[in-house]
Amino acid sequence: MESLTLDEFAIALDLGGTQLRAALVDRHGQVLNRVAVLTRATQGPDVVIQQLKDAAQAVMIGVDRDRVIGIGLSVPGPLDAAAGVSISIPTIAGFENVKLREPLQRFLDLSVWLENDGTAAALAEWRFGVGVGLQNFVYITVSTGIGGGVVADNRLLRGRLGLAGEVGHMTIIRNGDTCSCGNKGCWEAYASGTAFTRRARKRVEADGLGLLAGSVAPIDGQAVFEAAALGDPVAMELVSEEAEFLGIGIANLLHLYSPEAIVIGGGMSPNLEILRPGILSKISEAAMKGFENVPIVRSALGGNSGLIGAASLVFDAVSTKMS
Amino acid sequence: MESLTLDEFAIALDLGGTQLRAALVDRHGQVLNRVAVLTRATQGPDVVIQQLKDAAQAVMIGVDRDRVIGIGLSVPGPLDAAAGVSISIPTIAGFENVKLREPLQRFLDLSVWLENDGTAAALAEWRFGVGVGLQNFVYITVSTGIGGGVVADNRLLRGRLGLAGEVGHMTIIRNGDTCSCGNKGCWEAYASGTAFTRRARKRVEADGLGLLAGSVAPIDGQAVFEAAALGDPVAMELVSEEAEFLGIGIANLLHLYSPEAIVIGGGMSPNLEILRPGILSKISEAAMKGFENVPIVRSALGGNSGLIGAASLVFDAVSTKMS
Repeated sequence: MESLTLDEFAIALDLGGTQLRAALVDRHGQVLNRVAVLTRATQGPDVVIQQLKDAAQAVMIGVDRDRVIGIGLSVPGPLDAAAGVSISIPTIAGFENVKLREPLQRFLDLSVWLENDGTAAALAEWRFGVGVGLQNFVYITVSTGIGGGVVADNRLLRGRLGLAGEVGHMTIIRNGDTCSCGNKGCWEAYASGTAFTRRARKRVEADGLGLLAGSVAPIDGQAVFEAAALGDPVAMELVSEEAEFLGIGIANLLHLYSPEAIVIGGGMSPNLEILRPGILSKISEAAMKGFENVPIVRSALGGNSGLIGAASLVFDAVSTKMS
Repeated sequence: MESLTLDEFAIALDLGGTQLRAALVDRHGQVLNRVAVLTRATQGPDVVIQQLKDAAQAVMIGVDRDRVIGIGLSVPGPLDAAAGVSISIPTIAGFENVKLREPLQRFLDLSVWLENDGTAAALAEWRFGVGVGLQNFVYITVSTGIGGGVVADNRLLRGRLGLAGEVGHMTIIRNGDTCSCGNKGCWEAYASGTAFTRRARKRVEADGLGLLAGSVAPIDGQAVFEAAALGDPVAMELVSEEAEFLGIGIANLLHLYSPEAIVIGGGMSPNLEILRPGILSKISEAAMKGFENVPIVRSALGGNSGLIGAASLVFDAVSTKMS
């Protein structure tokens, strides 16, 4: 009676250094049975693989196993997608050359596909988000750090070890601030949410001015955006500086990938509108003829982009199981 | 009697703002009947198209027309490859939305393919140079300016309007020196041959020191490399600074495209060996795990890369005409 009962699902796993998320995702990109746990990042690969198995099993509860067509896995860092091996996850202890496909495949008797997290998120936007129908776009997540994924010439851009699109670690300021990666002057060190909050706190400490000075809790990025929206001049300056940093990096990406659109996700993306004038102004200074006038749009999928991307790997690979 | 007589040729046209080159290129990448003329860059598209026709006809002299299978055209700037239209060539007057395929096709009754010059040069290295067998590499030409082209996941990276890989115009120094493009702090403004020579002249004017001070002619880049090879400390400093600038940009490209190799062409490439230690040192500081240890190799095709790339467009498209 219900056409729903004919749906097929992918198990989506999104392995991060902090959180491990899992869900069932259907062919329409709907996320069901979502679970999230803290990654036991200090306890070694065996423990983390067990977490992945447990999470996969948890999201399958109550679902006809025949309707589950495969497992998609989004992982940070370099990988060998063909072999199903994660080469290194710096934020998880002991994660060096860890086989991920084999144990999951054996445990659930389902095929497994894996992809770099930034690339998976771009795939999600391409299949189900604001990237639908585009041949070329860059997905950027601006959050604690900055990551990315690229669709170019109607394909995912993977590169060696699936690592293409590591956009946060291009140098935009020679000998600039030290980045979490150890390099100096990375885009991430200036334009990430972390960098934005750090600048805001420093500024408030130094000047004690404006609406931000009255804050009881430690200033966070959101407070700055809210104060800027109310016209606070210090907050507006901070936002304008952030927009400039974002614009420098985005202009670089325009020249490097020549996308039709830039898609912004991550924790900062809800504030895209207040940042937009400053971003566009920087781009209009920096972009050459032929590279300007590329729309900058907000991610449609938010925190589910990793899961939906992981599931899309499965749907792209398996056209149908039930026909 | 001669197997040579069975060869097929492409007409290769390499349209630059300064020079217009043409040649016949065979399926082995051999360049024959090469001609080069100054581009009549101030005289409008009709004159330049006539130059292209004349050059194409000139290189066909003495060749059996049946053995010529098509025309490949390398052009700077944005283009519509499918329509055969050059959208803009800033260095040639009036070159806005100029049809290139149609007049050449009509004139010689041969099919025409066109590609962005950086991408065409990358294709040449991929088919006939140091990129043979690679799935992912970045070609960089360091000369008057800096250009590039990218092979990713076993395909040419084109992007919107064929413009992907415009590597020279990423900002590496916020608010840095003004670039020829009008932006500030582009890689080209620091690491191009032009920038290198400018720094050298300034340094010699200021300090009047070292072997370079004895030079009668105005200092050029080659003189600096030669003095550095002889141990001149000022020249060595200049070379080391140039290597650092090159290294910053190359490290960026490693993160953005995740290539298996970086291929350096252009006027500075003969001096790659003296630059290499400084480039590698910068990369080792800047590259994250997974992105290091990528070979940096010198272009094999030199000044013919544009022509060979243009011809490769034809060979890639036409598997054979004579079978």
